[in-house]
Parts: sequence; structure tokens; C-alpha cells
Amino acid sequence: MIQGLSQVGGQYVSSSPSKSFYQWKNTLFFEADSNQINHALDQAELAYATLKMLAPSDIAQLLECIIVELESHQPLILETYQAESHFPKGRADGEFARTIGQIRTFIKLLEKGQHLQAKIDDATEISPDLRKVLMPIGPIAVFGASNFPLAFSAAGGDTISALAAGCSVIIKGHPYHAATSELVATCMIQAVEKSKLHCGTISHLHGSSHHIGQYLIKHPKLKGVGFTGSFSGGKALYDLAQKRTVPIPVFAEMGSVNPVIILKEYLDTDKELAQKLADSVLLGSGQFCTNPGLIFIESKDDNHPLVRDLISRIIQSEVGPMVHENILKSYTDQITQLSKYSPQLKVYQSNVSCATCGVIKINDLIDVSSLTHEIFGPYTLLVLFDGVDEFLKMIPKLKGQLTMTILGNPSEVKKVSEISQAVNHLAGRILFNGVPTGVAVQSTMTHGGPFPATTDSRFTSVGTDAIYRWLRPITFQDCPDALLPDALKRMNPLKLTREVNGTWGIH
Amino acid sequence: MIQGLSQVGGQYVSSSPSKSFYQWKNTLFFEADSNQINHALDQAELAYATLKMLAPSDIAQLLECIIVELESHQPLILETYQAESHFPKGRADGEFARTIGQIRTFIKLLEKGQHLQAKIDDATEISPDLRKVLMPIGPIAVFGASNFPLAFSAAGGDTISALAAGCSVIIKGHPYHAATSELVATCMIQAVEKSKLHCGTISHLHGSSHHIGQYLIKHPKLKGVGFTGSFSGGKALYDLAQKRTVPIPVFAEMGSVNPVIILKEYLDTDKELAQKLADSVLLGSGQFCTNPGLIFIESKDDNHPLVRDLISRIIQSEVGPMVHENILKSYTDQITQLSKYSPQLKVYQSNVSCATCGVIKINDLIDVSSLTHEIFGPYTLLVLFDGVDEFLKMIPKLKGQLTMTILGNPSEVKKVSEISQAVNHLAGRILFNGVPTGVAVQSTMTHGGPFPATTDSRFTSVGTDAIYRWLRPITFQDCPDALLPDALKRMNPLKLTREVNGTWGIH
Repeated sequence: MIQGLSQVGGQYVSSSPSKSFYQWKNTLFFEADSNQINHALDQAELAYATLKMLAPSDIAQLLECIIVELESHQPLILETYQAESHFPKGRADGEFARTIGQIRTFIKLLEKGQHLQAKIDDATEISPDLRKVLMPIGPIAVFGASNFPLAFSAAGGDTISALAAGCSVIIKGHPYHAATSELVATCMIQAVEKSKLHCGTISHLHGSSHHIGQYLIKHPKLKGVGFTGSFSGGKALYDLAQKRTVPIPVFAEMGSVNPVIILKEYLDTDKELAQKLADSVLLGSGQFCTNPGLIFIESKDDNHPLVRDLISRIIQSEVGPMVHENILKSYTDQITQLSKYSPQLKVYQSNVSCATCGVIKINDLIDVSSLTHEIFGPYTLLVLFDGVDEFLKMIPKLKGQLTMTILGNPSEVKKVSEISQAVNHLAGRILFNGVPTGVAVQSTMTHGGPFPATTDSRFTSVGTDAIYRWLRPITFQDCPDALLPDALKRMNPLKLTREVNGTWGIH
Repeated sequence: MIQGLSQVGGQYVSSSPSKSFYQWKNTLFFEADSNQINHALDQAELAYATLKMLAPSDIAQLLECIIVELESHQPLILETYQAESHFPKGRADGEFARTIGQIRTFIKLLEKGQHLQAKIDDATEISPDLRKVLMPIGPIAVFGASNFPLAFSAAGGDTISALAAGCSVIIKGHPYHAATSELVATCMIQAVEKSKLHCGTISHLHGSSHHIGQYLIKHPKLKGVGFTGSFSGGKALYDLAQKRTVPIPVFAEMGSVNPVIILKEYLDTDKELAQKLADSVLLGSGQFCTNPGLIFIESKDDNHPLVRDLISRIIQSEVGPMVHENILKSYTDQITQLSKYSPQLKVYQSNVSCATCGVIKINDLIDVSSLTHEIFGPYTLLVLFDGVDEFLKMIPKLKGQLTMTILGNPSEVKKVSEISQAVNHLAGRILFNGVPTGVAVQSTMTHGGPFPATTDSRFTSVGTDAIYRWLRPITFQDCPDALLPDALKRMNPLKLTREVNGTWGIH
């Protein structure tokens, strides 16, 4: 079933045999070339012209069909996933279930159709008949993430939200799990065929060189980009997209150190705290976007029992291998460099794995911005501070984050409140007395945040609101009923909840 | 009352007398300098920290107070407006009323509070308590437009939507009507003081050099930009904003040629058509964003009665002076250049005003892209085409537009439908059997569209949805009730319509 070739217009496309970048079992994988990318965009543009006319329920059927295809190939997908990513069976099962669950969430959204935000103002003596609805923006490129071969890759949140919006999608598979990506894409492309939708609805491109991404982003037919990965990768794509003759929106989720702030009294009351924090730091071998990389602890004492306990749990835990040797190498390189940033930094390393923990006082950290940057992997920096005022001085040094977490006892509510208000401009999600890993796929989720956590804080990449990245408003003025999209027709054939003359309801 | 000085932190700030750029009656106007801009940003950041905690009703009171101040200074504002812009009394009165009406629309929005999009998912066995709301993104710079000294300037849609969102605003007044801008800003700053809000909520900067805009946009404390004006101005600000260490969203509305397509049978039935089109072209001396600059006419005959009639009405009408001599100069320069683009272009110019009309066949236009660019002023290009297929060939040559207008008889519904579907990816608003000038301030309006009409087609700059440019989501996870924003508290103290566990209602 795996051919190592890109798929465009519903078919495998052959590539020059000189450009293979990967071998999986006996199959070589070949880089997509410029002709194939052009072909994918041509097909995506044609598909978009048909998708933009569909009702949400038609797209829901495609998503249903994708679930059927994925589930019927589940054993092979999971086997390939585990072998490529080195993640254990529990994670594989969990991520598969998350991926399916995510698609179901969008199916429910499409069945309601409220995301179209249909609004109608009937004509008055002084104003015309105005009807507004959201429409898809056009072909979208999705860059699969290294750390989530299923839930943030070929059939992940970016692809599914873009399809749900009515956009065609060109998937650039991540080279670290190219076989998994191809398998999943094949399921989706079969679902497109079985749903009798345009064959350009989904294409899948293989490759490991930057050229493919650059060529894709510069292509005039591309209208938007979804990316999850490193700051350097996301920012490079963003910059290219803004330099185009016609700039396009890029939603890049580029990671975060997800600061955790633990107040004094909480330290002594939550007996599970060290274990919960260590688990959060080491989850998925530290390869989570919401991995807590900076843990502020209100204590003067770097021998505080929690500090000791946390260090020992982190460095004594079994940590699974990382997704790819390149990620491990980048991680160990950064860990090796750590000590040069500050003589005050103490580094604790594991003998049994690559897990690492640093300890520093806040006053020694405040001017060493390098230490507040993300190190992708099983690492965290414990920062000791003495009183809220000391922590508040740190805030201007913190960049935009996906999450901020505050742990405090009920007796510390005033301090928690002060910190919460002081940091809310910095993060997409504020958690209380928990850990940041674990991102529920719900419409109430924000997986986003101010730059550099993402390139546009006004959107989220997890949860159904992720669809709004790929939709834009269009207003029809005095349009004959027959020519209106169904969402705006006078008889409301889709039975949508709409705003009519200022009142929401099914009318 | 007019001092020619910028206002920062609620006070006039004196400037080096060497840098005046304008004189109004006996008052010289001085450029804001870098210190004043820094001061404005410092104040705006402090104000933002207080504004983001306010309930929508508190902001509504500020807007009410702005209306009171504007209305109590109405005679002076209108007198200054007319003298500076050369617009007649009717236009002055109309634009003042529009400005007040626009503010009232936002007050109504704030009273409902639904724009906060509060959503709540209670905790379940497998998921935490998640509560999401929109919050303001931070200090916003607003660049006043040359062509709307009231409705798109100091107290225009960009400023009012940003204030309504809870953002502090730094207004860069347009130098072509600096006195009007200062007067209006003074009213708003007085309203801030009377509302006992932070004095950095609104600042107003004078100047005509590009330096001020560039310095503002590069300032790290600025978080967003609203602009209405030329492509070159908007794109330059956009590019600067994207090159910052921390890029920020820029919503630039950069104009459009607003194509109008008139089908054959319609030509002969609407007896008012020539007059309606001529009025639309000449409205406000052609200085409207939605001015129809390209009128496609389904006729082989450049002697068709509508063509003759339209030309004669355009070139024989009285047209008032333009807002500023520089705009007139830029307009006449472009008109002078017209004939060089194509020997097939016929140009008809008025003897009594600067109004101009071109005529060309679509096949002679299709490869002359310069002729499809906007010429800001009382000019339109009539383009003759023969059958829908000929028009469809033109579509790939058209750029993103604020509006597209289709005029067809009921007997031509199939052709109208085909064109409507073929162009809907190109425009923010599609009109039927009307003219594009006249932009109702309603939540159903889209005054936006694909680049280069705007820099982000996912937003509008007119109507209450304009507020979403300045808001971003934040999720509170397992947050103690006392620490939640009021919009998310369990007892719903603001009585908002919220989505609770998937159901919308006041709960």
C-alpha cells in the first residue's frame, strides 16, 4: 500500500528516482518536484471552485467517510506509526482515538452549521437587503508536525478544519514519519473518491527539503497555511508568505515554554505535585507543544523538598526515545550549551535517559533571555522566586505563550488574582492548579497565543474554532433568492441558526 | 480650541517649532516627534491594562460620552470639516450623522455583550472546566483616511471598533484635515477624562511625514493597526509590521475598482441606469472606496445609447473640488498617463471638471493590467464585452475587490448566477442591480475583501464585526469563580448570551 510517492489529483505521481530522501522497509520515498506542486495547486484550485458551493452536510459526509477509511486501516496505520515515531502502543492508540474524535467534533459542527454565521438584515426604507455568510478562502497548505504523526499531521486538526471550512488541502507530510503520513493521506484521498468529490480536494506531497515548502508558499494559487513546529520553521514560512505579491495568512503554532507559577503555600499542600509536574515535563518524551519548560517556584531555598523531589523524579524516570534522531540531536546540543548562559544555573541530568532539569534563581534569570527559550524535549527549568513582586518583574521578559499555569492555595487567592491579571495578555490559555499538557478538543479551547507562540493570536489551532482561520465573510446585497447560498436563502433550507434582523434563531 | 499640537496622556504636548507642516487660520500644526510617540505608547500600554478589565457597559458609557462631546461641538466641527475638505454642507451633515450612528451601533453591540463570544464547558470526568472569552489585543494605531474626515478618521470606524474591543488607541490624524482631526480627538479625549478612564486611552498625533507612521508601527508596545487609504501607503505599513521582531496584525483597506457587470437585456430596461452609474462614479468627487472604476457592459457597440449617455452624464456633471490639491494632482497625473497604456482606449474628459471616462473593448483590456488599477477620483472605465464567456476570461486578470456588482434582468438569471459564482472568491460584497457606493453600517456588512482590497479578507472595517480585528480568544481552565472575568462567571452577572455546554442562551 505504501509507494513512497506523492499523490496529486487522486493519483500517485512518479518522481525522478534520483531524489529519494527516506527508506521505509523496502520502499524508497521521493521528493515532490515543482511540476507536481504546480499540478497539486491547479487541482486544488479546481476543487475549491466546487467545494465552496457545497452545503456543510456534504462536507460532513466526506469527514464521515475519512473516519471509515482510517478505521478500516487502523492496524497498519498504528503499526507504521509506532515503528516510525517510537511512541509506545498506549500513545499510538490514544493519538488515533484523538484524531478520530477530532474529526467527529468537526462533523458535529458542520451538522449544526452555525459556524457559517449566517446573518440577514431585511431591506428597510433606507437600507438594502444584506445577507452575510462565511465562505472558504481557497487552497490551504498544511505542514504535518513532527511530534503528532496523527493528530497534527495528514488527518490532523489543520487539515480537518480546512476541509470543514470548504477549502481544498495540500498536505506536506513530515519526513520523520513519511510512511504514516502517506497511509493516512491515502485513506483520505480514497474517502474523497468515494464521496464523489473533486479529485483535487486533497493532495499529499512527500519531501524533506525546504524547497518544497518554499515553492508551495510562494505559489500564487495558495491562499493560506497551517503549520505546527519550530519557531525557525514557522517564522520562515510566515516571512515568505508576507513577501508574496499577494500576502496570505499563515497560522503557525511555534511552541512555547508554558510557564508554571507555584505559590508558597501550594508547594506544601499538594502531595502529588512533584509527580504531576514530572509527568507533564516527560509526557511524550517532552515533545508536547504545551510542555512546561519554565516552572517558577515561590521559595528562596533551592533545597526545598519539592525542588529536590521534582529533580529526582525527572532525572530518574524512564523516558522513551524521541520521534527522530535529529530531534534528539538538536535537544542534546541545546542541553550541552545550557551551562554557558549563566554560571548560576545548576543542571541535573539523568543517567538513564536524556531528561534534564535546570535550577536558577529568578534574579539570575531575568537578564538571560536565552534561558527562557524553548528547548524541545524532556527538559524544564526551575526558577526560584521570593514573593509576587519578584515574579512580576519577570513578566516583561516573557514572550507570548500558549499557556500559563498558576498554582495557589485558596488562602493565596489575592496573589493568584494579581498574577493572573498581570499575565493574561501573554497567553492563549490560563490554567489554575493543573498542568499545561493535555489539550481538550472543544470549542472552548484556545490553542494559540501571542507571538511567538503563534503568528496570529486571534485564532486557535485546536478545537472547532480552528475553522475560522480558513473562512472569510461575504455579503450579498439585494441578491435574488435563487442565487443566494442555501445558508442565506429566505426559506432557510439548511435549518440553520441565523441572525435575522438582530435576533438569533432557526428562521 | 485648535492648537496644532499632538495630545498624549490627556494633554497637549509641545513640539519643536521648526517642524510645522500645516497652517489653519492662524495656527501652525507641528509634527509629533519620537519622544511624543514613545510617550503615547507608554500611556496606551498603561491604559490597556485597565481597559482590558472593564465590562462592555463601561466602554459603552465612554462611547455615549464621546457622542455627547461631538454633538456639543458639532457646529465648529462641521465648519472646520467643510473648509478643510471642500465637501458641501449635505455631505458634512451626512458624514457627521454617519459617524454618530456608527458609534451608536457599537454601543448597542456592547450593551448585548455577545461579541465577547463567551463559551463555557463544565468539567466532565475526562475534561477540565473550560471557559473562553474574547479579550482586547492591546494598543492600536489608527491612521485617519483622507476621504472621510469624520467617519473613517479620528472618531471613525477603526477607532470606535478598537475602543469598543477594549483597546487603547493612538490616532494618527490625516494631514489633509488636521484641524478637523484635532477637534474630534479633543472631544474624545475630553470624553475619556469625563468617564474617569485612564488618560492614555486615546492619544492623537499630528504630522505629515512618513516617519511618524513608521516609528509608530515599529514600536514594540503597539499591537495592531487600522488603516484606510492608498495601496502604497497601506502596503508599506503592512510590510513594516510584518518585519518587526514581533509581527502585528495590520488591517489596511486599500481601495478597489469595484467592477460592475451589466448584462445585455438589463441595458435596455433600466431607464435610470446611466444616471445611477454616473452619480455613483461622481459621488464625493469620486473619492469613495467603493467607487465603480470598471464598468463592464455587454455590448459590441461602443455607440450603445447607455455608453453615450453615461459618458455625457459623467463629463457634463458638476463635480466638487477634491479633498486636497495633492489628491487632485495625483488624479490628473494618472489621467494624463492613461492614453499611453493602449491605443484602443478612448478617453472622454470634461470641460467643466476633472471627471473622466474611458471606453475600451474587453479583448483590448485583457492584457493591459495597468488599466484595471484604481485611479482615485471621478473616473471610470467602460469595458465592452460580447457574451458571458468573454467576461469570464477577464476574471483571472481581476484582483481582490471590496465589491462586485452584477446587473441583469430576471430573464438573464442563468448568466447572473454563472458570473456570481465565478467572482465570489474575488470580493467581500456582491451586489445585484444596484451601485456599489453606499456602505451600510450593519453587522451584515462586509467592507473588506481579498488582497489588495484589504490585507486580511477575514475581517471587515465597516459594521460591528469590525471589532473582531482587535479581539483574541483566551481560555480559563479550572479557574476559581472569583478570578474569572465577569463574562465567564458562573452566575453570569453581565446577563450575556453565552454558549454553555454547547447551547446558546442567557445562562
